[in-house]
Parts: sequence; C-alpha cells; structure tokens
Amino acid sequence: MKRNILSVPMERVEQGASKPSQDLVAVEDPLQIRLGDRDVAITMRTPGQDRELAAGFLLSEGILQSRDQIESISEDERGTVTIIPSASAPIDWEHLARNFYVTSSCGVCGKASIDALRSAGCRALPRGQFQISAQTLSTLPQKLRAAQPVFEHTGGLHAAGLFNAAGDLLALREDVGRHNAVDKLFGSAFLENRLPLSEHVLMLSGRVSFELVQKALMAGIPMVAAVGAPSSLAIETALRFGITLVGFLRDARFNIYSVPERCDYRVFKTVPGTGSK
Amino acid sequence: MKRNILSVPMERVEQGASKPSQDLVAVEDPLQIRLGDRDVAITMRTPGQDRELAAGFLLSEGILQSRDQIESISEDERGTVTIIPSASAPIDWEHLARNFYVTSSCGVCGKASIDALRSAGCRALPRGQFQISAQTLSTLPQKLRAAQPVFEHTGGLHAAGLFNAAGDLLALREDVGRHNAVDKLFGSAFLENRLPLSEHVLMLSGRVSFELVQKALMAGIPMVAAVGAPSSLAIETALRFGITLVGFLRDARFNIYSVPERCDYRVFKTVPGTGSK
Repeated sequence: MKRNILSVPMERVEQGASKPSQDLVAVEDPLQIRLGDRDVAITMRTPGQDRELAAGFLLSEGILQSRDQIESISEDERGTVTIIPSASAPIDWEHLARNFYVTSSCGVCGKASIDALRSAGCRALPRGQFQISAQTLSTLPQKLRAAQPVFEHTGGLHAAGLFNAAGDLLALREDVGRHNAVDKLFGSAFLENRLPLSEHVLMLSGRVSFELVQKALMAGIPMVAAVGAPSSLAIETALRFGITLVGFLRDARFNIYSVPERCDYRVFKTVPGTGSK
Repeated sequence: MKRNILSVPMERVEQGASKPSQDLVAVEDPLQIRLGDRDVAITMRTPGQDRELAAGFLLSEGILQSRDQIESISEDERGTVTIIPSASAPIDWEHLARNFYVTSSCGVCGKASIDALRSAGCRALPRGQFQISAQTLSTLPQKLRAAQPVFEHTGGLHAAGLFNAAGDLLALREDVGRHNAVDKLFGSAFLENRLPLSEHVLMLSGRVSFELVQKALMAGIPMVAAVGAPSSLAIETALRFGITLVGFLRDARFNIYSVPERCDYRVFKTVPGTGSK
C-alpha cells in the first residue's frame, strides 16, 4: 500500500532563528483512471482507496449508475485503476471520447508529473539571484489579507499575491479556484511583458499543490510562500526545479522546504550549533 | 463587467434560533478559453480579469511563451475568452488536440453548468424524507475533525464525512483534493451498493464549490454541510436540485442556503416574529 503521509526535511524558522527539522506532509500523486481500455481521467490524489476513487469518479460523472455495471476493478503499482464494465453496462463510448480527455498533461488539472515538466523542456531556475529577509517574509500574510477585499465579505476566495524582495505587494488576484488566482496574477505579468518574475515572491492564502508550483516554474518565479501546508509533490517539484518553497507562513514563524538560501542568511546564524542546508 | 460577489438569501441559525438573512458569496461561473478557433479549457472561476486568466493559463501550460505570440484577445458576454495567436507563434496544434480537451462536461474539472446536469438527466431530489436537528448538525464538525487522523499530522488534507440523521459518522475519507475525498466516500457506498444515500449528510472540512454539490446530486444525498463558504453556483445548484446546503457550520452556528426544512423545524420556531422559508 502506498503511503499517504511523508516525512520531509525542512528548516523551521521562528522568532528570527532557524533550525533543521522534519515535517509530515500529505502525499500528492497522480492516479490514472481507466474504463475498459480507455483512459478517462488523471487526478492528483492522496494514495489510498484508489478503487473507491475511480468508482466514485465514474459515478459522479454519470458514466456508471449501479454496482452491477462493474465487472471487475484492478489496480497496478504505477498508479492506475482499471474498471472493466459489465457487458450490459450502457456506456456511451462515443460520448466518452468526446467529453473526456486525458494524457500526461491536462489543462485545468495541471501537468500530472515532474517528468512531464522535464520533457516539456522546463529547466531549474538559476540560484543566487533573489533573496528576501525572514523579517520581510513574515509581513507578507498580513499584507495579503489586508489587500483581499472580497474574502473579507465572503470567506470564499483564494488569494495570490505578487511581492518584491522589499515586501511590497505589487499585484493581487482572488478567485474561487486557487489555480485561477495564480493564472490571473501571472497572466497579468505575461500580458505586460514582465516575465520572468525572477525577483519576486508568489504568496498564497491557502495550501500549495503540485499544480501551483508548476505555474510558478513557468513564470520563472524563485519563491512560493503559503499560509497553508505544501503537498509532497509540491515540495518535490520545488526541489527539482530550484524553487524556494515556504509553508505555514504565519506571523513570525514558517517552514522552508527547499532552497533555503534565498531567505536572508543572517537569520540562519542566530541559533548556535545549527547550520543552514 | 460581471460581478464577483453576490448577495443571497439564507437562514442564519445561532444558539438554537433561526432568522432569514442575507449573505455575500463569491461568484463561481464557467469560463471557456479558446486559442484561435479551438476550445482549450473550461475553468470554474470568479469573473474578473478573464483575459489575464486565459493568458496565464496558456502560459502555465507551456502553450504560449511570450507576449508577442499573442495577436489579440477578446471576450464575449457568455463567458468565453478567445486568444488569437500571432502567425509566428510556435503552436503545436496536434499536441494541443491530443493533450487538451473540453466540452461542457469535463472529467476532473466537473460539469461546467447546471444546464449540463439537466441535459444529463439529473432530477431534483425528493423533498420531505430526510430531516436532522440543528443540535445534531452542530456536532458534526467536531466529530469530523476528531476522526481525521492525517490532517492532524499534516494540515494538508481535505476531509469528507458521511453522517446519518442521528449524527453518527459512518465513513470518512481524506485527500489533498476535496473532489477526490468526496469521490472516495461516494465510491465506497457505490461499490457496496448502498446508493442513493437518501438518509445522509455529506460533511466537508472546507469550502463548497459547484463540483461538490454536483457529486452529492449524483449520489442522491439530500444535505451538504461545510465548515467553509459556499460559492454562488454551489448554492444555485443546490436550490435547483433540492439539496439542503449548509455553510460556515461551526459549533452552535451555521447558515442554510437552500431547502431549510430538512433541518428540524422546532429550531425555526424559537425566534418570535421570524418564520422559516
């Protein structure tokens, strides 16, 4: 059985001091759902109950209606669940072909793997250019929240903010979908021909999934900071492509999961006996 | 310009009393992204900055790389943004056709409209069968949290719980994707031939989008309750298909956005001068 929690190394920064530590993060990993010999969907999920996930997906998409329409369900080690429909299941294969899509790269759902990013020609960001102080980083959540007008009213929106190394908020976008908020933010810079965003921080009001780190990579942004938790694949992608990933950024404490040297080095010297990575 | 906040009527329940009230909710609405004459994606977004969203999406998917690859951008009233690429833009149309998909019904992204649900044959749930007391409803968030082992460790998972009218937790699933947690939960009932879940409540640890209400509809569940905020389209869908939608369920207070009579009527009589809907 695949694990659903992973222990990862990180730097825990608190009250101006930092020390190497471990954190438990939720695993995010692609699952391919097949119906007969057809790929129906890829979803980024936490491993476990994958047969239920596949069955529930086919139910909620209206493809299957009752248990007896399923002949068998199997899963393999590489993250694929295959449901074989019974001969009498009224599946509209033509409708499926028109309405479902899937390969290793899925529009709204994000690229499904790091390998897909590499094969798409994505390269690691250059190191050593951008740096921000821990003190400045600590001010970002409050600035983001203060500038988030719709959330105050509805409690229903994710925010994505673009900051510089001085901690100035340069742009903010809100959306019910966090991927949309990030697309709007980077799309605005793209349309104004300001890419890559190599001197900036992407600040997120929620959690960090693989998809959001992938978008940061495409915009050339060296640091992603979030109020919430990162997923395993978000961290893995940040490590692979040289993006600094900060999680649980709340007031004077946060965790750095990758490339900690972009956070001002002086902070990393205040705890005797612990070095930075 | 389309609005991004909507004022909706609801019942506010607090300390055993209820009164009709209004709430501001974030708008959720489908946006179709077109590149030239090809549909590339539908995303459920909050209206506003739609051109930026389309450009950012094409950037983060690696389809466009620089501003000069865009000839023009236009948008229409029906929620479509069309980006016309410049003649020199190196777009791999064959790759696009293989890798992007879209119509009104999208697998991982959920059906894109209420009309799509109606045309797929979805009918409103029967009224008057299921009822739960406000007191019992108030206990669900704590029970969900207490049973959520992975969240405690990682802070990174969404939970979906299945409860009965007595407030017993019958099943719980967790996932980095809230849609996956719900698919696992309903998939489990589906595989055990226990559908429709007409005597149950779906309890969510986060916010409620259109997609989650759609899944509840397919499982025949009469009530969706969430710790977080609902989107406009989640409410609209719940109203249209007769699902009771409860939001901001926290201890002894919550909001009911649709079909309030499934919440025990006695609670609605304790405030003189205010009737239930």
